[in-house]
Amino acid sequence: MKLTVLGCYAATPRTLTNPTSQLFEIKNQMFLIDCGEGTQVQLRKHKIKFSRINHIFISHLHGDHFYGLIGLISTFTLLNRVNDLHVYGPKGIKEIILLQLKASASYTGYNLYFHELESKESELIYEDEHVTVRTIPLIHRVYTNGYLFREKNTQRKINIEEVQKYNIETCYYQKIKNGSDITLDDGTVVDNKVLTFDSEPERSYAFCSDTVFNTKIVPLIDNVDVLYHESTFLESEAHLAERTMHSTAIQAATIAKEAHAKKLILGHYSTRYGSIEAFKEEAKAIFPDVLLADDGVSFDF
Amino acid sequence: MKLTVLGCYAATPRTLTNPTSQLFEIKNQMFLIDCGEGTQVQLRKHKIKFSRINHIFISHLHGDHFYGLIGLISTFTLLNRVNDLHVYGPKGIKEIILLQLKASASYTGYNLYFHELESKESELIYEDEHVTVRTIPLIHRVYTNGYLFREKNTQRKINIEEVQKYNIETCYYQKIKNGSDITLDDGTVVDNKVLTFDSEPERSYAFCSDTVFNTKIVPLIDNVDVLYHESTFLESEAHLAERTMHSTAIQAATIAKEAHAKKLILGHYSTRYGSIEAFKEEAKAIFPDVLLADDGVSFDF
Repeated sequence: MKLTVLGCYAATPRTLTNPTSQLFEIKNQMFLIDCGEGTQVQLRKHKIKFSRINHIFISHLHGDHFYGLIGLISTFTLLNRVNDLHVYGPKGIKEIILLQLKASASYTGYNLYFHELESKESELIYEDEHVTVRTIPLIHRVYTNGYLFREKNTQRKINIEEVQKYNIETCYYQKIKNGSDITLDDGTVVDNKVLTFDSEPERSYAFCSDTVFNTKIVPLIDNVDVLYHESTFLESEAHLAERTMHSTAIQAATIAKEAHAKKLILGHYSTRYGSIEAFKEEAKAIFPDVLLADDGVSFDF
Repeated sequence: MKLTVLGCYAATPRTLTNPTSQLFEIKNQMFLIDCGEGTQVQLRKHKIKFSRINHIFISHLHGDHFYGLIGLISTFTLLNRVNDLHVYGPKGIKEIILLQLKASASYTGYNLYFHELESKESELIYEDEHVTVRTIPLIHRVYTNGYLFREKNTQRKINIEEVQKYNIETCYYQKIKNGSDITLDDGTVVDNKVLTFDSEPERSYAFCSDTVFNTKIVPLIDNVDVLYHESTFLESEAHLAERTMHSTAIQAATIAKEAHAKKLILGHYSTRYGSIEAFKEEAKAIFPDVLLADDGVSFDF
């Protein structure tokens, strides 16, 4: 798993800080999460191949999370994109994008699919051979979802010593990985459990932004490997967090602790603070393994 | 007159080039012309006070000319703007902006007025004590206007020698500037023409982007002081200019020459070219006084 933070500051784009956008890579799939103004320039800066982005997940329709989407969609057209593009986001996003494409009389040359969300319950919204994506209903000033990405490790791991002991040919290996028992030439059936180890644990990443402090999400992200949780404010501005339906660093850390997350990444910082180090300090009092997102920073897990 | 080029490249924003936006200052008024994605960051980079922008003119609804508008309008709200904001642009712009403000449940705290354009004839769309703005109907793939900014110099210049000769008190000076004759104490009437010189010529600036080569605009911009005319392509790509309804540098220079412009500024360069110097060279064969726009460049006239 690799996470590249293209932007992680709240509110308005500035000379040195960008609004929310992240690129999440898992099993060679690339998912773009949120798309604030300037995201396409950030993608260029980080030399991300535009054609590798086929799925874009938008958390909510505040500008700092999606005003860069129409530009990216238009740029894909100018670059003669051919791959299908799937956009997942709140109901209303399709009308906003299509109205602008119509006004510019420049429809996409590729298939553009919208998957509009309106459920307040967690839903499975994407699945392929290797990954699932579920929504994490968040509570903010407008309808908002976080997204939970989870690897699918359906294959068991071969116990090579045992397999060789029974002289099983390599052409059966995939079958064994898939969980089948094996019948030997003499008719003996060897239990799959003898021939394999349990599969690797399924790695997972939860993106939670923007949201008020909300423990209802804890069961949905229980045992998550990496939790990105917004921390717009420090504790001294907890009253602002409540009023604007955002979280503090301590609240983000509390969610991480209750959900037994392995790591917490903080982000979506208000631009009022001179340095972001204080976010880490405050969160660490509650939860030990805290990382700070920052524009351009990548994390490998 | 001062022109600050915030962005002047065609199509997609890139790491080092920005789509169209300009700040035009005349008689202490500031007008924003076009607003491609990233314009608000460019404004910050050039330390432009956001509160000084009260009038925004959008040429057409292609993304590279207006995808930054919704972000700028939202940022004005976050900055607690109080001044009225006026947006001039093609019919449809109001629906696009309001739909997005509605989706984010974040209406402006200031008055936002849209002046939607649909006429194919030149119109007077703005006038104050010092400046007029007229549309310049352009021909492009969608409905497009250029804008002609013209100073209003209604005041004549006082001939101080003559005024003192007649012992006219200073309290009459404004009346004289306004063109009135003066009756002296002995009943003699002194003709205004004796007391004044002609007013300074009215300075003017024409913004013409995007457009195919179109000599119909020549009478509208006749004798303009400064003409910004798009030159997306060099002559070697004249076929592309025709097909995409853009202009070449030579075509821009031809318009400048026929309109008796004093200066020509080229811009809206296709990003296919390594250097923009060739635009100047090609244009100079037709019209001598050519300047090259570039992101961040200011011109004082």
